[in-house]
Amino acid sequence: MEYKILGKKDLTPSTLKTMTDSERVQLCAELRDKILNTVSVNGGHLASNLGVVELTVSLLSVFDYTKDKIVFDVGHQSYSYKILTGRFNEFDTLRQKGGISGFPRISESEYDCFDTGHSSTSISAALGMARARDLRKEDNYVISVIGDGALTGGLAYEAINDAGHSKTKMLIILNDNEMSIDRNVGGLSHYLSKLRISSGYISAKATTESFLRKLGFFGRGLIRIIIALKDFFRFLLYRKKPSIFEDLGLVYYGPVDGHDIKNLIKAFDAVKDIKAPVIIHVLTKKGKGYGHAERNPSNYHGVGAFDLQTGVVGGSKSSYTTAFAGALCEIASQNRNVVAISAAMTQGTGLENFSMKFPTRFFDCGIAEEHCVTMAGGLAVSGFTPVVAIYSSFLQRAYDEMISDVCFMNSHVVFAIDRAGFVGSDGHTHHGLLDISYLNSMVNITVLSPRDYKDLRYCLDYAINKCTGPVAVRYPRGSSPFEVSGCLYEDPEDCILPHLSCGTGTDYAIISVGRICSEADKAVGILKEKGYNGIHINLALIKPVPYDEIIRMISGIKNVFTIEEGILSGGFGEAVSSGFVEHNCPCHVYNIAVPDPMIRAASPAEQLKMAGLDADSVASRVSKVLGEM
Amino acid sequence: MEYKILGKKDLTPSTLKTMTDSERVQLCAELRDKILNTVSVNGGHLASNLGVVELTVSLLSVFDYTKDKIVFDVGHQSYSYKILTGRFNEFDTLRQKGGISGFPRISESEYDCFDTGHSSTSISAALGMARARDLRKEDNYVISVIGDGALTGGLAYEAINDAGHSKTKMLIILNDNEMSIDRNVGGLSHYLSKLRISSGYISAKATTESFLRKLGFFGRGLIRIIIALKDFFRFLLYRKKPSIFEDLGLVYYGPVDGHDIKNLIKAFDAVKDIKAPVIIHVLTKKGKGYGHAERNPSNYHGVGAFDLQTGVVGGSKSSYTTAFAGALCEIASQNRNVVAISAAMTQGTGLENFSMKFPTRFFDCGIAEEHCVTMAGGLAVSGFTPVVAIYSSFLQRAYDEMISDVCFMNSHVVFAIDRAGFVGSDGHTHHGLLDISYLNSMVNITVLSPRDYKDLRYCLDYAINKCTGPVAVRYPRGSSPFEVSGCLYEDPEDCILPHLSCGTGTDYAIISVGRICSEADKAVGILKEKGYNGIHINLALIKPVPYDEIIRMISGIKNVFTIEEGILSGGFGEAVSSGFVEHNCPCHVYNIAVPDPMIRAASPAEQLKMAGLDADSVASRVSKVLGEM
Repeated sequence: MEYKILGKKDLTPSTLKTMTDSERVQLCAELRDKILNTVSVNGGHLASNLGVVELTVSLLSVFDYTKDKIVFDVGHQSYSYKILTGRFNEFDTLRQKGGISGFPRISESEYDCFDTGHSSTSISAALGMARARDLRKEDNYVISVIGDGALTGGLAYEAINDAGHSKTKMLIILNDNEMSIDRNVGGLSHYLSKLRISSGYISAKATTESFLRKLGFFGRGLIRIIIALKDFFRFLLYRKKPSIFEDLGLVYYGPVDGHDIKNLIKAFDAVKDIKAPVIIHVLTKKGKGYGHAERNPSNYHGVGAFDLQTGVVGGSKSSYTTAFAGALCEIASQNRNVVAISAAMTQGTGLENFSMKFPTRFFDCGIAEEHCVTMAGGLAVSGFTPVVAIYSSFLQRAYDEMISDVCFMNSHVVFAIDRAGFVGSDGHTHHGLLDISYLNSMVNITVLSPRDYKDLRYCLDYAINKCTGPVAVRYPRGSSPFEVSGCLYEDPEDCILPHLSCGTGTDYAIISVGRICSEADKAVGILKEKGYNGIHINLALIKPVPYDEIIRMISGIKNVFTIEEGILSGGFGEAVSSGFVEHNCPCHVYNIAVPDPMIRAASPAEQLKMAGLDADSVASRVSKVLGEM
Repeated sequence: MEYKILGKKDLTPSTLKTMTDSERVQLCAELRDKILNTVSVNGGHLASNLGVVELTVSLLSVFDYTKDKIVFDVGHQSYSYKILTGRFNEFDTLRQKGGISGFPRISESEYDCFDTGHSSTSISAALGMARARDLRKEDNYVISVIGDGALTGGLAYEAINDAGHSKTKMLIILNDNEMSIDRNVGGLSHYLSKLRISSGYISAKATTESFLRKLGFFGRGLIRIIIALKDFFRFLLYRKKPSIFEDLGLVYYGPVDGHDIKNLIKAFDAVKDIKAPVIIHVLTKKGKGYGHAERNPSNYHGVGAFDLQTGVVGGSKSSYTTAFAGALCEIASQNRNVVAISAAMTQGTGLENFSMKFPTRFFDCGIAEEHCVTMAGGLAVSGFTPVVAIYSSFLQRAYDEMISDVCFMNSHVVFAIDRAGFVGSDGHTHHGLLDISYLNSMVNITVLSPRDYKDLRYCLDYAINKCTGPVAVRYPRGSSPFEVSGCLYEDPEDCILPHLSCGTGTDYAIISVGRICSEADKAVGILKEKGYNGIHINLALIKPVPYDEIIRMISGIKNVFTIEEGILSGGFGEAVSSGFVEHNCPCHVYNIAVPDPMIRAASPAEQLKMAGLDADSVASRVSKVLGEM
């Protein structure tokens, strides 16, 4: 479509404020077009962004983004905001190397006031900003935009509890689309459904209050009376319970139709000056304006490139996720103690099939990683074997629960950790580069990092059927660089042993864990061409490190290089360095790991290169050390 | 007092069930006496345990502890339960080496069904157990006992949200004493106050329902009608909002007087078979029955030995906590950007003075470590310098928030991490042995572990006034082994340098961080007697390790030993081992660290010995290595 506003008009805060209604409608159409055209090429978060176009335009029509602070929870719905705050021209570079991020980034724009990526942080961050404003006696507005899915996270509740107590002036926009990534679960979700019913009443109320406010002093007095009476009225008129949010000390307002710009603006105007935290309940539709996404928002949550006309998403190849999913279903059909737990990611973690095959043995606990883990602890002490499937970076949320509620009791909980390693275009908030380190700090846990699909299947079977304490099986996003049927060993029980991957010679040994094996293999080839002959050992068992076996395999080799797709500190490499001294193994151990976990959006291959983990970098690192000998 | 029941009668579940009312009252008096006499000698959690004596007796009169599962949240209120479930005779060993734990421990008794220690886990754990029961089609009861303080933790909310959705049969006893350790904060706390008002009505209701239930089918029908009508009745009679818990899908019942055994038993009987999660709101008084503790429960929360008659608690010596508290107030009076944040631990973290001196700059956010950290992130991006004071083991809860909401944005938040290292009789759930590892995995953060009070003050000043990114200052529980005015250096700016602590010679070098310096000093003396001469270097700066300075100081020394009060993995020692190779420093580096973080209750000195970190162990470790050369 031809844009009449985007890229034409100089969109300052005041242009946005003074637009006509029809201009705003036109602007929304252009935003949708821009988002669809960009995401269908680059991939990205589609459904969530299409859902908040009107909401974003309305927010920027009432508030001044150069002064007021808008914190987008999770941040995967900030595309319209980015386009409207000076990033229209760069928007084509979305999620690409050197391009703009798919999430708010303070390093990218002064109008992104807080980095987000993980769920449920926005109310806490906004409350901090509101308190800062109050301490300075300034008067800007602070706004959190949070989905009903993110509200199932305990952090959001902690923040509401604090805000309700402190009475700090702030706005919480509850973007209620009845979804997290999957359809929402939890008592709160049922409760919100009840609130949704009375939307007619509330829209009318918005209009009335806005009108009354215009009457000045007299009107404001009336509003106060109305607020005082509203529980009573609601009860009489609607037999509806007063809002849970009001119980916690917030002023509740809504619901408002999230695609009706006029009413949204009225609502924001009506409540923005209330000297207390206000929650505005806005109803939106995920995927709004794009039929395919409206009908199936989960499929268009985080999406790869797709065909705009047909909605067909680019070829879904085999992946570690599907390998895990298949193996789990197979194991679970043999072992009836196996139950599976998801944190609002049934589809992303590959548990859909499991949930359909074994509905009573499947629990989706909402965006609540902490609760997932502790609940798994309860199941485990009762004799079940829970498989908790959570992405590596999101599982960081449950660090303490893994330690206190599972590992200390040596309970048999299996952590299926997807997205371990580089994730590509989501960027640094979503990389799984810390899990080796945080898992290594946990007592009693076994940590496995399989190389390929078969290895993954064997490791999962070992974790479920052989282990008796906590186990983590970590595997990366995307498809394996190895043949589907390829594996370094035959006997499934050998999954915990180190295996010779390739090479002969005693110039050096490389020890790799997990999928990075493929880069190390290539590095051995490059080194051979340079005249260096050594071996490459791969293993899945990161904790406890099988020192004896490794030391036997590298006998006679002086220079050892460890390589892993994770940070250095607390990683596999450091454990080897420290442990070799303990085992009187007189090698020099050089650790190759990710030096800086803040590797920005790019393809995983590019990210390996940026981190110095690709074959070329590894080979030159090794040859440099050997050349200096 | 002379016991008529405890230690006399064989207290089986059925004895408890068939006791007369007056026997139960007698039993409660004996339990209080036993608790007071033990805690006044051994130290322990007093106020919380005195508050739940009647509640525990009532629970065990209705439920069967050999079959039903009772999960005590935090677990510092489980003394009566321990005494009544077969541990009366060992109770004198409470919190001592080899004695019984101050918290529920599955390794201690088959009747402790889940280990607790950190807040807000019990509903999740109980829900897991309830689901396990349902999957097995068994019929035992599952009960969570949780304080109103612990309910401010987001994890509890996540669990309620899930329980309310799943409709699993379970009981949640809300032990409402209006306190966490300090007086409670938050919107929920205000809300609970409102619920408390109607207690007369509810006690009557319990009696009526219990009576109706006895009428069998007809009575149960009436109960159902009453439940259906109760919102309506409550509104008409009490103008009170229906409970927030009911909004989330729970059945709410209460409040009930938590010191009235008859009514408690009636209440439990009335609701125990409801096929849904039920929350029973019980009002208790912390410290009940001991005047000193009733009047000042915070002082008798976790308490050392005290005089039973006068209530005077054993001499409170200087401590790292008070050194931090004093330094912070001083710095904050100069630097108006400093604000302080506590997670319901104002007194424990030493922030009381700050909160009185700078009330507008102090925020107690409840037992909500995650929110504390993210909120601090919001303050920091707004130009303030928040000092977040949280114990090492509790800060584990905010691992992800520290990374995502502070470190990734390189925000200037100062983490004041108390209880870093061994904590003594609270045992393994409360040791601060992981913080070096988890902090080392965070990008951009500076980590400081001061040796003594002066060092702590200088490090805090450096963290607040010199750093611009995230900084952690970690310090242990209790008093310093060094002179109050002692310090290894003069110029405050040298706090980030390594310093020679003692010794001459090139046989070895010991590098220590933090307070463990004192053991290393002694080890140097022991080694000298054995004929080994080396140096001991101490430093506070753990991250980034000042490699160049250290390598310069150990020049000519081949055998280097690192020592730290923390686990090996990801610790200071591993960083040195790996980094020395990187820096072409040809030493053998031996890491001395805590091999097993699950060191049980004992004195900190005993715990150092158990972990091999005391002077003797360190000296023999060093001499063994040197002897083998």
